[in-house]
Amino acid sequence: MTPQDAIRLFTKTLENLEKWMDKATEHAKARSFEVDVLAKARLAPDQHDFVHQVQLACDQAKYAAAYLGGKPAPSHPDTEQTFAELRERIRKCTGFLATLQEKDFAGAEERKVAPSWLGGRWLRGDDYLVHVAVPNFFFHVTTAYAILRHNGVALGKMDYIGSLPTHEG
Amino acid sequence: MTPQDAIRLFTKTLENLEKWMDKATEHAKARSFEVDVLAKARLAPDQHDFVHQVQLACDQAKYAAAYLGGKPAPSHPDTEQTFAELRERIRKCTGFLATLQEKDFAGAEERKVAPSWLGGRWLRGDDYLVHVAVPNFFFHVTTAYAILRHNGVALGKMDYIGSLPTHEG
Repeated sequence: MTPQDAIRLFTKTLENLEKWMDKATEHAKARSFEVDVLAKARLAPDQHDFVHQVQLACDQAKYAAAYLGGKPAPSHPDTEQTFAELRERIRKCTGFLATLQEKDFAGAEERKVAPSWLGGRWLRGDDYLVHVAVPNFFFHVTTAYAILRHNGVALGKMDYIGSLPTHEG
Repeated sequence: MTPQDAIRLFTKTLENLEKWMDKATEHAKARSFEVDVLAKARLAPDQHDFVHQVQLACDQAKYAAAYLGGKPAPSHPDTEQTFAELRERIRKCTGFLATLQEKDFAGAEERKVAPSWLGGRWLRGDDYLVHVAVPNFFFHVTTAYAILRHNGVALGKMDYIGSLPTHEG
């Protein structure tokens, strides 16, 4: 999985996430409740709510693209409160991912990645992708999925995975 | 992320999962309940329980290693019911992953991967890793984590991520 593969996978998965939100919206409508109730839902009182899981998934994708592509990460303040606002956040994120070019990733594996939470230490670009960006991205999208699932939205594994580049014969 | 990187990441994460189970065991002891109650816990009535999430995570890692390494996948029947049995399952899985050699992965990206659930279609090895193995593996470990978290086990993000190969200076 090259950095470009990872960025494409993040984009596809964020697009899948928007479809889970469509299903959540239909579910809310069918049950006559306001879908934004789910925006505040969480699985444990001291775990982040749906809004923040989506924000964090977007940030994992954004920072991976920025660090590995050698571009500054655009600022996306965590101001969203509603499904409509989260859709905009997702699109700002995938819009940024789409700006990265093949050539931006040249030498990505050896870039020094030093996010502030590492307290002055750093990771190689390839290690950042393997040990931080990929596991964390899927942590947050899966937790977002689980929050919807726990609240009765009828999601299944193929909603999670989305389209597959299969071949015949 | 090479197939070998992915296999190492799966191994590390399954070892992290055993540590979450240690914390769950301590939590159960402190609260005077039988930890195997959590083995049957689930986030939605029609979603798999903790036992099956762990079995599925192991299987995603096992099949990725087998398909990409060109080795037959050993049979690991889904008979586990307890935390102790799940630990054995995890170790059978990581034991198999450890048998794969660098040379087994030569040409892995172009192998035809045709699991029966694709109904006769197939994926390239690299696509299988990106689109199936990695997202599904993290889906099941994150759901297992979420089940424990939802039931009060005090897990945090660094329990999820585990050790990082950071550098100084």
